[in-house]
Amino acid sequence: MRRITVLRLFHRVGRDDRVTVHVALTARAFGASGVMISGDRDDGLIGSIRRVTEQWGGPFEVDFVEDWEGYIRDRKAAGDVLVHLTMYGVSLLDVLGELRNQLDQRDMVVVVGASKVPRVVYELADYNVAIGNQPHSEVAALAVFLDRLLEGRVFKVEFEGAMLKVIPDPRGKRVLRLRGGNLKSEAWDGDGRGRGLVV
Amino acid sequence: MRRITVLRLFHRVGRDDRVTVHVALTARAFGASGVMISGDRDDGLIGSIRRVTEQWGGPFEVDFVEDWEGYIRDRKAAGDVLVHLTMYGVSLLDVLGELRNQLDQRDMVVVVGASKVPRVVYELADYNVAIGNQPHSEVAALAVFLDRLLEGRVFKVEFEGAMLKVIPDPRGKRVLRLRGGNLKSEAWDGDGRGRGLVV
Repeated sequence: MRRITVLRLFHRVGRDDRVTVHVALTARAFGASGVMISGDRDDGLIGSIRRVTEQWGGPFEVDFVEDWEGYIRDRKAAGDVLVHLTMYGVSLLDVLGELRNQLDQRDMVVVVGASKVPRVVYELADYNVAIGNQPHSEVAALAVFLDRLLEGRVFKVEFEGAMLKVIPDPRGKRVLRLRGGNLKSEAWDGDGRGRGLVV
Repeated sequence: MRRITVLRLFHRVGRDDRVTVHVALTARAFGASGVMISGDRDDGLIGSIRRVTEQWGGPFEVDFVEDWEGYIRDRKAAGDVLVHLTMYGVSLLDVLGELRNQLDQRDMVVVVGASKVPRVVYELADYNVAIGNQPHSEVAALAVFLDRLLEGRVFKVEFEGAMLKVIPDPRGKRVLRLRGGNLKSEAWDGDGRGRGLVV
């Protein structure tokens, strides 16, 4: 299977900070190889996503792209398949088999925008795909798209070089701290305090 | 099948505005009956979620809850099942069948927090459930939880009293404007401009 890159369009510093972080972390956790962010340049945001990858493992690529249209055209010219997630598109259920076949042969770019995605994106996309036709969230759309396309990889994904690893627990937080792949310590945090962990 | 209510904990005005809107719209689009928001009182936020329901149809309940712990205890006392979505919990795959059985008999409250969810939530929850054990997003977690629990209701959900309805389109935006259930006009917006629609 080939690689999936998520392209986040039109990020605005301030207004979109948290949603763009959610898009990036969802891309990583659900099986994409990386996220490219366009719109306002936001090195702090990119740094905070990289810190998650340092703590929780990789590989996961994150970068800023200045010219998103050039990026899309280059990737298409290289033979990649372009999927645009939009509430106006055709149902994922109608194209899921086709998308899985495409992904066996070609890398995929998945575009998620804020509002006001320009016409050219709809035209350049090989597939304009909807996760239902109601307004909701690009984070929700990306999660369900990747969950269904990759058949639940989020439930079994493993990352390399992780310093932190969760052991599922019915009543609290059980976290392993690792160094070079070896156990450094184990903590059970029954008081539920976040200790600075994301989400 | 019984009703699902999403409880959003610890909303902070400003910082969480957009993520909380995404939580609410995801709850609606993926088949929950309503969302209760606790934390900062934010009437503007609640108004904007209600406007989406007026335009795109209902029923969908949205309200502020002052005392979230009292709300949880009341709902549990009334016999509802409490599910807390957390990256530290047990895998959804391990409890999905059980949760479907529960939902046949009892209403369900699904709790999604910001960071720093206190211990009492882990203790009160009948199920602490993870959509994978990596950090990502409460919006992603809620979407996949509801998609899998309700077996893709997002792809077939219909709302009453909608003024707007999308007709899936491979290349643009096709939107019906309705009045009292009757077609008022149909528009195809090939230029991809958002015209103020959410998402």
